[in-house]
Amino acid sequence: MDRHVNRVALLGSTGSVGTQTLDVARHLGNRVRIVALAAGHNAGLLSRQMAEFRPRLYCSLSLSGPDTSGARAATLEEIASDEGVDTVVIATSGIVGLGPALAALRRGKTVALANKEPLVMAGGIVMETARRFGGRVIPVDSEHSAIFQCLLGEQSPVRRLLLTASGGPFRDYSTESLAAVSVEETLAHPVWSMGRKITVDSATLMNKGLEVIEAHWLFNVPLDRIEVVVHPQCLIHSMVEFDDGSVKAQMSEPSMTLPIQYALTHPVRVASLTRPLGWSQPVSLSFEPADATRFPCLRLAREAGAAGRTYPAALCGADEAAVALFLQQRISFTGIADLVEQAVGAHCPGDGASLDAVLDAAGWGYSFVMARAAIVDTEDAAQPRARL
Amino acid sequence: MDRHVNRVALLGSTGSVGTQTLDVARHLGNRVRIVALAAGHNAGLLSRQMAEFRPRLYCSLSLSGPDTSGARAATLEEIASDEGVDTVVIATSGIVGLGPALAALRRGKTVALANKEPLVMAGGIVMETARRFGGRVIPVDSEHSAIFQCLLGEQSPVRRLLLTASGGPFRDYSTESLAAVSVEETLAHPVWSMGRKITVDSATLMNKGLEVIEAHWLFNVPLDRIEVVVHPQCLIHSMVEFDDGSVKAQMSEPSMTLPIQYALTHPVRVASLTRPLGWSQPVSLSFEPADATRFPCLRLAREAGAAGRTYPAALCGADEAAVALFLQQRISFTGIADLVEQAVGAHCPGDGASLDAVLDAAGWGYSFVMARAAIVDTEDAAQPRARL
Repeated sequence: MDRHVNRVALLGSTGSVGTQTLDVARHLGNRVRIVALAAGHNAGLLSRQMAEFRPRLYCSLSLSGPDTSGARAATLEEIASDEGVDTVVIATSGIVGLGPALAALRRGKTVALANKEPLVMAGGIVMETARRFGGRVIPVDSEHSAIFQCLLGEQSPVRRLLLTASGGPFRDYSTESLAAVSVEETLAHPVWSMGRKITVDSATLMNKGLEVIEAHWLFNVPLDRIEVVVHPQCLIHSMVEFDDGSVKAQMSEPSMTLPIQYALTHPVRVASLTRPLGWSQPVSLSFEPADATRFPCLRLAREAGAAGRTYPAALCGADEAAVALFLQQRISFTGIADLVEQAVGAHCPGDGASLDAVLDAAGWGYSFVMARAAIVDTEDAAQPRARL
Repeated sequence: MDRHVNRVALLGSTGSVGTQTLDVARHLGNRVRIVALAAGHNAGLLSRQMAEFRPRLYCSLSLSGPDTSGARAATLEEIASDEGVDTVVIATSGIVGLGPALAALRRGKTVALANKEPLVMAGGIVMETARRFGGRVIPVDSEHSAIFQCLLGEQSPVRRLLLTASGGPFRDYSTESLAAVSVEETLAHPVWSMGRKITVDSATLMNKGLEVIEAHWLFNVPLDRIEVVVHPQCLIHSMVEFDDGSVKAQMSEPSMTLPIQYALTHPVRVASLTRPLGWSQPVSLSFEPADATRFPCLRLAREAGAAGRTYPAALCGADEAAVALFLQQRISFTGIADLVEQAVGAHCPGDGASLDAVLDAAGWGYSFVMARAAIVDTEDAAQPRARL
């Protein structure tokens, strides 16, 4: 194998991170080869991607029959375990990426992880698997990539991680105003263009809370040493404070192509699709503490992370259901945190050390919230009252 | 030798960086041992330092006779070459540190360099000596330490260095207002407490210009890829932009104890005397391009750096004289740049590859400016006119 070519399996190729990963692959040319593609229901786009990149393996929930490009159908786990794959990019959504991530790590491969659930719900299992088999997890989202870059070459313990957050579109809203925000307003994220679920999670700060749990597992830093700092300009993507008081920050224009590329070329850096920051005009960066009172999802995620076991999985499941209900306009924006808090409060935790326990807990959280909403809907039908 | 103990020779122990280096040494306890001290004319303080740290060697311009502490007198070069020394901290002022820096590098030692002149005037010689004999130069000032920290572990070329500058006390002054500023105003630096010469150099931005030349040599980055960004809060001490557009920045409270300690413990980091940055209150960081029109010393230093040979040495000598004249109230603030520009314009360069040529050029620059000022003084005495 030519050691300069990174043979990449891309799981979730038709989503936002997936298509940007292919943009990066086009840009990187001979440095990477896409040897496997996997996608869910967008068969048309997957076919076009396969025609262009001519992977050896593919997995699709919707394509059927032998592919004309000559690619062989395989499961996600088969792709992740294939010995012709160096790096598995997990750009799927939800928990579906966990199995292939573990399969790749068990073969000592590199997993470029773009979705949160595997680490949030099963961080202990993922990192222990990586350690045991010599696999490596490289984060693809901007915050954890920033921390990963700041830690490069450092040998000393971290004193604090400072995760930056845009603060979302409702950064300055009072709790009362938050109760009344619409789905449309929520989906208008000021900086990042992302999927609907993660855009809502950004507005509630649940996304940032999940990132705190992720950072805890990725970098082996206690939760109480991970702070969230609101930074509306989204140029500093996160920071690391070391024992001597020195802080390193990583900055760039907000663009996923940079962390994606870094995960594929690390530790080498080459010209990227990300525009350089300009310094010929005045630049202003501001920071303020995150407010876990107005944005209780941040507190709920921290509490679930600290409680451990299957609490984070239950939190994830509950949040997925609550966000879906909000997008269906069945509950208010503040109802998301209310329902998640009820779910976490009612959860009877398993030990969290098995995949089954984790998946069960996520499913339980989802069902709990959906059932609560159904009760409220029924009550609503009987006697009109404010939405949750 | 216990490899955890860094045996330090401190040259310039009674100055600002020198006394702070001893603060750091006290703080670091067993990690460092001060094995040699050298100072100029402050015999009283040097004696007290020797009584406390009990170095094996000392060098003093003012102490005479055998020291009661039992230390042996030695020259700076002897100290720097001594086989019982691991790191030589060069905290002297002016060019006096160049000889011992080269002596230490020739023995493959680490030189922690706190003063600018050796690199500005003889950067090629210093870095070539380090390369040839396996010595190492670790910068001690905050800007270059920041860059050094940001480069840790990075394997790829740098696209740009962004040196931050406080902008000095006259950041927003017009050229007309600058002509009228007093010595007192100039010495009132908004952030850093430093010696008088460097405080004036900070106000003219000559200091930043010299740092550009230093950075060029230290990090092997072309001058036109080194930008100066005014950052009045002085929390980000400098930044590095890599080929992929990613920028790393190093931040901390403005304090010399952090870069001093990092130079002594690198690559290990331990708790320092520097207070951690606080994020529980709003923080605002601003940046604007440096204005080399209002602050021509920045341009003059860049031009001298680009011209190479003995131009930077002539610039340094001329600036030293011009700052002295300003502090004596014999010329105006803007007269500093005027005189330096005349000197650099009149300089006949040597090849800059020999120490003698460098020292000659610095002496020539100093004399040129002093002679010009004497002419102006004489003219002033004959017929009153505006100061230069």
